[in-house]
Amino acid sequence: MTSVLFQRVALIGIGLIGSSIAINLRERKLAGHIAIATRRKDTLDRAQSLDLGDSYHEDFAEAVAGADLVVLCVPVGACAALTALIAPALAPGAIITDVGSVKGAVVSAMLPHLPANVHFVPGHPIAGTEQSGPEAGFLELFENRWTILTPLENCDKAAVARLQNLWEAMGAMVEVMSPDHHDLVLAIVSHVPHLIAYNIVGTAADLETVTQSEVIKFSASGFRDFTRIAASDPTMWRDIFLTNREAVLEMLTRFSEDLASLQRAIRWGDGDALFDLFTRTRAIRRSIVAAGQDTADANFGRLRQHKDLPGQQ
Amino acid sequence: MTSVLFQRVALIGIGLIGSSIAINLRERKLAGHIAIATRRKDTLDRAQSLDLGDSYHEDFAEAVAGADLVVLCVPVGACAALTALIAPALAPGAIITDVGSVKGAVVSAMLPHLPANVHFVPGHPIAGTEQSGPEAGFLELFENRWTILTPLENCDKAAVARLQNLWEAMGAMVEVMSPDHHDLVLAIVSHVPHLIAYNIVGTAADLETVTQSEVIKFSASGFRDFTRIAASDPTMWRDIFLTNREAVLEMLTRFSEDLASLQRAIRWGDGDALFDLFTRTRAIRRSIVAAGQDTADANFGRLRQHKDLPGQQ
Repeated sequence: MTSVLFQRVALIGIGLIGSSIAINLRERKLAGHIAIATRRKDTLDRAQSLDLGDSYHEDFAEAVAGADLVVLCVPVGACAALTALIAPALAPGAIITDVGSVKGAVVSAMLPHLPANVHFVPGHPIAGTEQSGPEAGFLELFENRWTILTPLENCDKAAVARLQNLWEAMGAMVEVMSPDHHDLVLAIVSHVPHLIAYNIVGTAADLETVTQSEVIKFSASGFRDFTRIAASDPTMWRDIFLTNREAVLEMLTRFSEDLASLQRAIRWGDGDALFDLFTRTRAIRRSIVAAGQDTADANFGRLRQHKDLPGQQ
Repeated sequence: MTSVLFQRVALIGIGLIGSSIAINLRERKLAGHIAIATRRKDTLDRAQSLDLGDSYHEDFAEAVAGADLVVLCVPVGACAALTALIAPALAPGAIITDVGSVKGAVVSAMLPHLPANVHFVPGHPIAGTEQSGPEAGFLELFENRWTILTPLENCDKAAVARLQNLWEAMGAMVEVMSPDHHDLVLAIVSHVPHLIAYNIVGTAADLETVTQSEVIKFSASGFRDFTRIAASDPTMWRDIFLTNREAVLEMLTRFSEDLASLQRAIRWGDGDALFDLFTRTRAIRRSIVAAGQDTADANFGRLRQHKDLPGQQ
């Protein structure tokens, strides 16, 4: 059984997340009308050729007019200006949400521009890949993944429930928390891991004693996992670090302290300290697999190469 | 066409690498006889029940007697004592190699014990998964991956060529370099990435403000990739850090310097510095995919979940 949850959904921005939402709305028949708007004409044309929506708009106000749900699917840094632009066109009673990876700064950026007669429910689907653009979206992106909603204290409960229903209809599990706690959690599970991945890839690229071609050839020994994360969208990630500054700096300080302590253990040959940590971290991996948040397959189940093998005739 | 490259291969240690070599020797008919020896009776029994070899030995000297190839597939820290143990039993003219992730320390550990009439050719297959034990091995592990050989200067060229042939017959590509250069390359492409993965997982586990269950639930946002690496064998990795100390400390210093500079860019809101690095690192990912060292599929081609979807009747 399917049911239309919103009559008109306006998606502002149509990258990986926006296009995955569009595909979900379409395939699961969750929206009466899907209006897509984005800044660049070229991107809008690509979305249209992929048949992601029902109407396509260069004019944001036109897209949101009459929408009972508006979803900003843009880098965090673009939220303030966009909200100012669409605010006058928002229908009374509309729900407005976003998918940004930082919530405190998004609330500060959007709230001042919003009229009192709309429901603002910030959101963040914990799902993604290193790919971007309207071609990157797919139906299963949110399946079995968490979406965090961070409604403000005075927010209409019914609006939160409607948005939660939509995310669950797209396969997600939903958790509600405060914007500040969200930003702290994401700093450690996402933002600092991305930062150190970007950093190690940069360090490797700058070496004089090891060539870039050696780094690439021998990357299967661990490094290549980091390069996937370090291939994520630069604009999106610049904005995340600039807008979740306090929490990132706090977690980064702890990370560096811990790393200095490991460095000392290596310098002084303290094998027990290393072994103890390495045993503890292995258990956390097992918990993640047990919680269904990753595959148990070796190497993430990367496809094994099946070339023509000598001796297999 | 198949051809037996060695009459008797002795595998000392039968974890992920040892068992993958055994499976290759067997399936591709590269050895006349596969002798397997390991310290723990339980592991030896598991290897036997998996039918990995032709003979199984608790006595290392018995395993290597008459072997024209001996491969140490044990943690780096075990190489010295093992070599002392088997040295008297080595056949004249035998090739002895290893698969350790550090080469300088392995040479220092093994060379003093070896008789002059054997050929010592240290080696390191750049292949692995986070899994360990005799059950973890598989035929394709070395396919399209590099194996580095680090022969000493006075080494017999014919022995190096025979070992290179074997690795190529198992699907690997072979590169020859000095032990010191190997250790520098691996420090940046493998050892430091593993250390920072272990470290971030430890930092996350120690937080008071974010619960462990939150870390696990929301791990799909980046963190889970690090946990895979941080689930690697603790003994093996302890030994790597203790034995490749100088190169690891050197690379770690550079990493920390670079990270401090990124931290400063975040603190002072230098978005251009962040954007520039994030753009540069994306290009390196593309080179790794282009070199065939990783899949281009999003999320490493992790299998997408296909649950029963509402609205798909």
